[in-house]
Amino acid sequence: MSRTVRFELLKVDPATGARLGRLHTPHGTVETPAFMPVGTAGTVKAMLPDEVESTGAEVILGNTFHLYLRPGHKVIEKLGGLHQFAQWKKTILTDSGGFQVFSLKELRKIKEEGVEFQSPYGGSKHLLSPELSIEVQEALGADIAMAFDECPPHDESRAYVEKSMQRTTRWLDRCVAARQRPERTSLFGILQGGRFEDLRRAHAEVLIERDLDGYAVGGVAVGEEREMMMDVTALSAPLLPANKPRYLMGVGYPRDLVDAVARGIDMFDCVIPTRNARNGRLFLRDGSYFNIKGSENREHPGPIEEGCACTTCVRFSRAYVRHLFVSNELLAYRLLTMHNLFVYQAHMRRIRAAIANETMAELVREFASG
Amino acid sequence: MSRTVRFELLKVDPATGARLGRLHTPHGTVETPAFMPVGTAGTVKAMLPDEVESTGAEVILGNTFHLYLRPGHKVIEKLGGLHQFAQWKKTILTDSGGFQVFSLKELRKIKEEGVEFQSPYGGSKHLLSPELSIEVQEALGADIAMAFDECPPHDESRAYVEKSMQRTTRWLDRCVAARQRPERTSLFGILQGGRFEDLRRAHAEVLIERDLDGYAVGGVAVGEEREMMMDVTALSAPLLPANKPRYLMGVGYPRDLVDAVARGIDMFDCVIPTRNARNGRLFLRDGSYFNIKGSENREHPGPIEEGCACTTCVRFSRAYVRHLFVSNELLAYRLLTMHNLFVYQAHMRRIRAAIANETMAELVREFASG
Repeated sequence: MSRTVRFELLKVDPATGARLGRLHTPHGTVETPAFMPVGTAGTVKAMLPDEVESTGAEVILGNTFHLYLRPGHKVIEKLGGLHQFAQWKKTILTDSGGFQVFSLKELRKIKEEGVEFQSPYGGSKHLLSPELSIEVQEALGADIAMAFDECPPHDESRAYVEKSMQRTTRWLDRCVAARQRPERTSLFGILQGGRFEDLRRAHAEVLIERDLDGYAVGGVAVGEEREMMMDVTALSAPLLPANKPRYLMGVGYPRDLVDAVARGIDMFDCVIPTRNARNGRLFLRDGSYFNIKGSENREHPGPIEEGCACTTCVRFSRAYVRHLFVSNELLAYRLLTMHNLFVYQAHMRRIRAAIANETMAELVREFASG
Repeated sequence: MSRTVRFELLKVDPATGARLGRLHTPHGTVETPAFMPVGTAGTVKAMLPDEVESTGAEVILGNTFHLYLRPGHKVIEKLGGLHQFAQWKKTILTDSGGFQVFSLKELRKIKEEGVEFQSPYGGSKHLLSPELSIEVQEALGADIAMAFDECPPHDESRAYVEKSMQRTTRWLDRCVAARQRPERTSLFGILQGGRFEDLRRAHAEVLIERDLDGYAVGGVAVGEEREMMMDVTALSAPLLPANKPRYLMGVGYPRDLVDAVARGIDMFDCVIPTRNARNGRLFLRDGSYFNIKGSENREHPGPIEEGCACTTCVRFSRAYVRHLFVSNELLAYRLLTMHNLFVYQAHMRRIRAAIANETMAELVREFASG
């Protein structure tokens, strides 16, 4: 069977189980483990698409919820899809919109049919269903669509988690049935089951039966402790088929990426590098960070990080970047975002090299003690 | 005598008196008539320096007032000057700071010594004097510094305008005496005298005696009617020496540039293209403008302007740019600013070509009827 996306597992690190691979999509190849910058509303905030690409990113994430509401998926479809609209030529993965509607709390109501919600832009009422989620993601022309699932809070009761998981399965089957363009947009399923091993195991079997193009570990990075996140990841990843990519949604800090890769994860997305940049927080290669606002940067002639090859560090001093940031200059957000995205992609390159060189266990130790 | 900046008058249009020239500075050559984008705080808002350069700009304006307060001229001097700090390699002209302190109204007090004012950032007290203005501009490493003058309101009494003009002359002489680095930073004088021809004439004689590197027509673009601005320009320009550049500060709309060039002006600066861009207002080549917010752009697949070679128009649709703008996305401000700056520089290229081809009178008519 020919697949819209195809995963090539190149190597498994004998010491940790970390995986080196390649994901082939209609818009190119993604070296894995991969980190996807978040392009919420059809733009990685403050950045031109070629700037994002210059950091080494090969795939970005688009948000179904935001693009459905503004400008509307039909507008984007009419204009040739999200790749054309946003001028991003490489791979796009879209989320299902589920996470955003669940986050609306008082403004939403979960039903078997889907999730009723009020738009935060103007209050109009909508029902996001598995069918609509797929319709939107296919209209956007995503290379990878995510199944519409319910993501319960990490401390939910077993009874609720089980009930929710069963609904997620029914929603998955509706997603599968709703697909109109499987040759262009692949579908990843999402593993739920909370912190309960037997539920995770049962749900994994259900997902595997559907033979999807890839799988996400769901129900993590939703406010739980880091240790629980890693435990659930360690428990979940081996339940998923080795020949399909594994995606940990909404993760994380540089150390989280190292640890999750060592637990068998291949793909990540997170707003941490971009959102932190806009708040002045800058990452360094060793995973540490600092805020550019600090007065020690006021006359600092050097770059954000010595030796960093990002365009910000190559050209501008900390003093200049700090000046722009404390002056609320628009250019600050670009320059800071550029650095953080570059550091994140450099981090992924380092992780991939460590798997290739069988030094992943050392990298895990380095970040654990950092 | 060797000059820090040297003006080469290439041609005078026989029909209108418009001038084609070249201004040679320590950081390159500026083709005139020239439009200077405003880089208030060491950045043309939202733009990288090479993006500004890509529009054809050969000189930008920096604001002494803002850079004195943040990050401080001594910080910038220590870091190698404004060219190095902001990574702008071409010519920089700085204003004297006078216009900004006069704009503070209740927060400032004019004295013979200078202008006392309270910082809008935190309320600290300062005295901006001719000496300090020159100190700051030289510390920034401007190629062209402006003399510190008083710019009275356009409807001031003759008695006040005359008194103020005399003080401006005393301040000019203090500026000249304060110069420490004339080999690096040239000095332009500013012609005052309000709407009174004899005062303008008298002040021009005073300025010419000082044999400065260039001259600005001051006291215009301060809220008066367009017609009065053009009358004062027409009256003032011929009073200034033909072999020195003439600069009309704070002007203007595309039609204003055409009309002022036809009255003998060589240089302009204005926030109109950049500030309007950030408010969604986009200029077209014919001098007209529209707001991207308009719902007619919601699904518009074409560029802001057909045939425009700016990077925004080459790559993105009106629909995308509008989506970014209504979503308050940071990328919107870059893309819109890029277009407007490009249109302004294209406008200046067209004006220069019209002078070269002796079709300037036609261009004036075209914009008058537009």
